[in-house]
Parts: sequence; C-alpha cells; structure tokens
Amino acid sequence: MQRQKVKINGESLKNSLETFANFGRTDKDGVSRLSLSAEDISARNYFCEYCKDLGMTIKVDDMGTIYATLEGEQDKPPIVIGSHLDSVKKGGRFDGSLGVIAGLEIIKTFVEYNIKPAIPIMIVNFTNEEGARFEPSMMASGVLSGRFSKTAMLQKKDVNGVTFSEALDDSGYKGVIENRLKEATAFLELHIEQGPILESESLSIGIVECVLGMVCYEIEVIGESDHAGTTPMNMRKDALFTATDLITEIREKVGILDDDLVFTIGRVNVFPNIHTVIPNKVIFSFEARHKEPNVIQQVEEIIQGLSASTITKGCLVNTSKLWDRKTVLFDQNVCNTLEESTKILGYPFKRMVSGAGHDAQFIANFIPSAMIFVPSMNGKSHCEEEFTTYEDCKKGVNVLLETVLTILSKY
Amino acid sequence: MQRQKVKINGESLKNSLETFANFGRTDKDGVSRLSLSAEDISARNYFCEYCKDLGMTIKVDDMGTIYATLEGEQDKPPIVIGSHLDSVKKGGRFDGSLGVIAGLEIIKTFVEYNIKPAIPIMIVNFTNEEGARFEPSMMASGVLSGRFSKTAMLQKKDVNGVTFSEALDDSGYKGVIENRLKEATAFLELHIEQGPILESESLSIGIVECVLGMVCYEIEVIGESDHAGTTPMNMRKDALFTATDLITEIREKVGILDDDLVFTIGRVNVFPNIHTVIPNKVIFSFEARHKEPNVIQQVEEIIQGLSASTITKGCLVNTSKLWDRKTVLFDQNVCNTLEESTKILGYPFKRMVSGAGHDAQFIANFIPSAMIFVPSMNGKSHCEEEFTTYEDCKKGVNVLLETVLTILSKY
Repeated sequence: MQRQKVKINGESLKNSLETFANFGRTDKDGVSRLSLSAEDISARNYFCEYCKDLGMTIKVDDMGTIYATLEGEQDKPPIVIGSHLDSVKKGGRFDGSLGVIAGLEIIKTFVEYNIKPAIPIMIVNFTNEEGARFEPSMMASGVLSGRFSKTAMLQKKDVNGVTFSEALDDSGYKGVIENRLKEATAFLELHIEQGPILESESLSIGIVECVLGMVCYEIEVIGESDHAGTTPMNMRKDALFTATDLITEIREKVGILDDDLVFTIGRVNVFPNIHTVIPNKVIFSFEARHKEPNVIQQVEEIIQGLSASTITKGCLVNTSKLWDRKTVLFDQNVCNTLEESTKILGYPFKRMVSGAGHDAQFIANFIPSAMIFVPSMNGKSHCEEEFTTYEDCKKGVNVLLETVLTILSKY
Repeated sequence: MQRQKVKINGESLKNSLETFANFGRTDKDGVSRLSLSAEDISARNYFCEYCKDLGMTIKVDDMGTIYATLEGEQDKPPIVIGSHLDSVKKGGRFDGSLGVIAGLEIIKTFVEYNIKPAIPIMIVNFTNEEGARFEPSMMASGVLSGRFSKTAMLQKKDVNGVTFSEALDDSGYKGVIENRLKEATAFLELHIEQGPILESESLSIGIVECVLGMVCYEIEVIGESDHAGTTPMNMRKDALFTATDLITEIREKVGILDDDLVFTIGRVNVFPNIHTVIPNKVIFSFEARHKEPNVIQQVEEIIQGLSASTITKGCLVNTSKLWDRKTVLFDQNVCNTLEESTKILGYPFKRMVSGAGHDAQFIANFIPSAMIFVPSMNGKSHCEEEFTTYEDCKKGVNVLLETVLTILSKY
C-alpha cells in the first residue's frame, strides 16, 4: 500500500493515558490495578468498548489475553502492538498501559485518516504481566510461548488464596485456546525504560535489541547463635559477619567483570534477628544481568566459589541457583525498521538493552519482535512517582506508528 | 557462731534441678517457663512448699518476688541467696533455677546438719528476670532497686495483650510493698556463665567482679529503590551496599580497640527486601560491652562518626543511641570471700566479668553483692541444649555454702 504520512494526536494520547489511569488511580496519582482485579476488569471493559468503537474485532484466549483486530485489505498475519494493562500495587500510570494505549491511538489515527491497512493490525493486552497478584510475571505470554505450564499457572494463588483459574472464571475474560496468537508479521512493544539511561543522556527513544540474560542465586550462611555479651569475639561463629565478608567479596570480584553488568543483593534475612544474639543464619539473594553468556558464566563461577573460600571462618556457606534466563535477542530487521522510523522522525535515540523482563521476550520466541523504550523520570517505575513526559510518550507512539506504516508499505 | 564443715548433697541437688525442670519441660529437655505462666506458678508453689517444709517463712512483695527466710539466732539483716525461676521460651534447665535451688539445698543442708544460723538466711525468687513474656528483663529487681518505674512495669503487655499487672493479679503472687527486700548482709547469686570461657579454660568456678557496661545503637541507612535490572551500577544509591561498608568499617575500627571488647550486630532489616529491587533502606542494631567506660566512649565516637564518613556514597546514615548501662562493680569484700571459699574447696577458678545482665546488678545498688559462675557447655544458654554438669553445679553450690558459712562465722 502507499506510504502514508501521518502522526498521532498528542492530546488524544494524553487523554487516553489519564482515562486509563482512573482505573485504580491512587491518592498520589499512581495506579493499583492488579491482574483480574475489579480495576483491571474495568480497564479491560473500557479497552474492549474503545476497540469496538474503532471497528475492531475482539477475541480472548484461554489465559484471558485480549486480542483486538482491525481488518486489513489482505488476510495475512497481523502486525501486533501490545503490552499489558495490569500494574503492581501502587504502581505507575505508564508501565504496560502505554504499550496498549499506543495501539489504540494508532488505530484511532488510521480511522480518523480513513486509512485501511494492507494487512490486519492487532492490539494485545497480555494478562498478568506484572505477576504482582499471581506469580510469576509475564504469566500469559509465558504460557503462550510454551515457557510456562498452563496447568501450573491456573493453580497459582494470590495472597487471599484465590487461584488464577478462579479469578479468570470470575472476570468474564476466560476465552478459548483457539484464540491464542499463533503467527504475526511483527510484534512491537512500546514501554517505559524503567531505568535512568535515556533521561541521563537526554534521549527520547531507545531501540531495544535484547532482554538481558540473568541468573539468580540464594546464599545461606550458617553460623552459631551465642549470647552477645558473654561470647569473646574470637570464639564466635557470626553468620552476619561472614555474610558481610561474602557480600564484600562478591562486590569486589563481580564488580570488575564488565561495566555493563548489573548485580543486586535485594533480599537479606538474618536469624534470629535479635540485637542481643549473635546471628546463626543469614540468607541473601544475589542476581546479575548481562547480555553475554560468558560474563554470566564468570559471575556464576564466583558465586559457586564462595563456599570454598569461607568455610574456614567457622561458618558453612551454601549457594543454590534459584533460576536463570538466557538473553533474548530481538529481531534485527524489526530493530532496523524501528531505527529508520526514529531517524525519519528526527528523535534522539540509542540502541540499548532491557534489564527488565517484558512480554516481548516470550513473544520473540515465535514472532519477529522488538521494543521501543521512552525515558523514565529519575529511572523510577513500579511506584506512584513513575513518570514519562507526554511529549516522550507521543514520540514513542509516533515511532511505533511510523514503523507500522513502513511495514504496511511493503504490502 | 562456730565455723561448720559441711557440704551439700549432690544427689539432692540433681533431684531438685530435675524436679524444677519438670515445670515446663520441653520435648528436648529444655524448659519453657515464662514469668507468671501456669508453669511458673507451679514452680513457685513447689518452691514455697519446699521452703515451708524446711521451716522457712514466706513473704511476697508487690512485684511478685518471693522471699523465704530461715530465722537466725540474731535478728540481723539476712544473707540473701537468689536468682529467678522464670525462663525464656524453649530455654534451659539451669539459667536462673540453679541460683534459687542452690538456696534450697543450702538450707536443706543446714536443717539436716541441725545448724542454726547466727543471722537469717533468705532465698529470693525474682519475678520476670528474663523479660521474655514482659519486657524489660530483670523487671522486679529493677523496680526493687529504683531503676524501673513500677507504674510503667505494671502496664507492660505480653504478646496476647495481657498486662503484667493482670498476670500478677491472676497468679496469686501479688504481695505487698512492705515485703520488699530493704537491707541485707550480702546478696549472692549463683548462675551459669552463658558463655564459653570457663569451659575453654577447664575451670569450674568464676568469681564475677562486675556486669559489663554496654551501649546499644540503631543505624539507619537511606538509599533509593530502583529496578535491579535497569539501573547501571554507577547510578545506584544502594542502601545495602552502604550498610555493608558501614558494618565492615565498624568491625575494622571497633575490633582493634581492646581484646576484651565484645560487639554484635544482631538485628538487620532490609527494605523492601525483594530480590529484584535495590534496597532503599537498611536498619541494623549495634551493641558493644566492656568494663571500662573509656573504651565504650571510643566505641561511641566511632559509631557517631559513621554518618559523616558515608554520606558521600549517596546514602544518608542516621545513628541513634537506643540505650546504655554503666558497668556495675560487685562488692570486693564479697568477691574476696567467694574467692577464699573456692580456694578452701580447691576448685579451679578465675575472676571474670559478666557480659550478660543479672538481677544481682540491680541488687548491688543497695546490698553488698557478688556472683558465682559455673561453666556452660559450649557456652550455650537460652536454648534447650543449655547444660552444666551436675558436678559443676555442685561445686558452685558448695562455694556458695562455704561463703555463707564464712559470713556466719563472723557473728
């Protein structure tokens, strides 16, 4: 079809972002919209009505994922735009929502300009991306890609003991397996960066080439609990002091591997955690993310080597790998198209990686996929302060629109 | 009176220790006998009956502390032997009990040998020494010595919301203020060491010269919570890494002050404590104990100086002093008498300090006091594994008896 020159309506985008933010809006302008909650169902209903008004057809699969399709002139696999409408508790207005709303605004633009696409365009809202109500995150895209067992996912419970299966039944959004996304021309996900890089470099657009591989360990240090007042320092087996030494050792050894490596010790539990008792056990998590498997491999060797190096301090150290994931490389053709679109529009951009997980990493398993990032103010997400300027949101959606138009122009 | 040459009956002591251990005995031969619990009341009843059978008079004060007195030939201030019958949850059979049972065995020996003491001998069972049900520990001796406010103590609640006042009313052991111990010739407390020193040096007896002064701080580190996958290492304000650096700094600086200094970081809480989130807050306790105030002073200067040294790492550090206590020196005359008694009996001993708190430290405020320690196997206490050999227990009680006889011989 002929190449169109259109842009989305910035005011409409802003209104849509604010309208969706009303479903679960918190006092401090954040959003609490846990998957399949009343707020999520309201947002889904609104989304479906909006799509129907735009002339789209709605289908829902067996995990509750919604697919809204605008018919194309040719009956070919669609261009898919998508993300998720669920949020974490006291999360932000942009994480996930932006990628779904982007689809709406693009279709709205097509309708307003009376553009009939050469091939179908689909908007997807994946169920339970956050995993905030039912673990794990990216649950529905994980099942769709075959990474997660549907049977296991249906049995996952929220804090109130409600299973995902029950919540899905009650939501009215339990569809059929036949409706699952099977093939597409491309999958495009626009998302906030959730990190500080774009903002710190004054860029508006990130072309995401991959989702970083990562590895997660749990390290347990076993010492001995003794009375804090009566045990001489040289007769102690202090699990906390040994854990502190291990953390220092990890930071020193892992910290010099590669500038792009990120690693975090986010969870630390000390036992018995009483100020007058020498700790007899400390358990802490360790996770590291990097694009290159060989760097992750070096990290693992350091972590696995901790036991041997510290047994001499009188404490036992056990390291166990909780899980890992390999780096997911996005489709280079799609990335190139995204980059060309960004250049056409003249927005400052860079190619980058995603340290966070996204539905796109699972969809990339069977559909040519890539992602667009827009800046997160102060790098914040999953909190009420999460913010991206409307101008940056607009630029992100325009890159998406431009990319869709480029793909369509080939048909 | 004439100097007697008697020793206690080891079998009787062992039987008494085992009998008292039945009040709250746990599966693993420990004891759960929280203050004023049904188990504690049973132990108190048994204690009172035992004393009455030995011809002693029972009085109870307004904090539930029991005083059993064997009349002397002269109506002078008594020699007081005492400790506590309450235990922590899943504690041991010796902590506290030994010091009360020691009194019973000594009086029993007097009765059996038909010795009428020159001045009265009193056995005291202090209420709620452990503070395991109602904080703080050493509650009744603290009130007795004027260190704690009785009004405040009566309002202390257990985990079920029961106040100390209610528990005391229900126990049947609420006595009158007139019965409080006011004056005595000496106060002697036999206790397990709760540390590893005596055992490691193959000694049977510790003559305790003081209860160590201590200081307790809370250190709060405030950083920023960011996404573990998307925030480059050099853009983080990681409260855990800063806390780890502080702990290392504390260990390095405090660790070299004095060989006898003990210090502990027993409680560490990390927020939000999620493995994928960079910690934004860490709070940890720090306590240090030493005999000399100038050493404690140096410790305090190091802790108070932490803020300034770490503000540059992007995290705020707040240090606050929770509380302190000064070193309590026991009466040198009483200590000397204990040492002479130990030498007469030929038991291997040393003069030492107590890192743990005991009722004697409050009683020392108004009565010449001192303590005897016996070895704790592996230094353990406040646990079911707590153990002291019956032979060592017997030696400890014999030192106590010998000391009582020495004091009596002066009248």
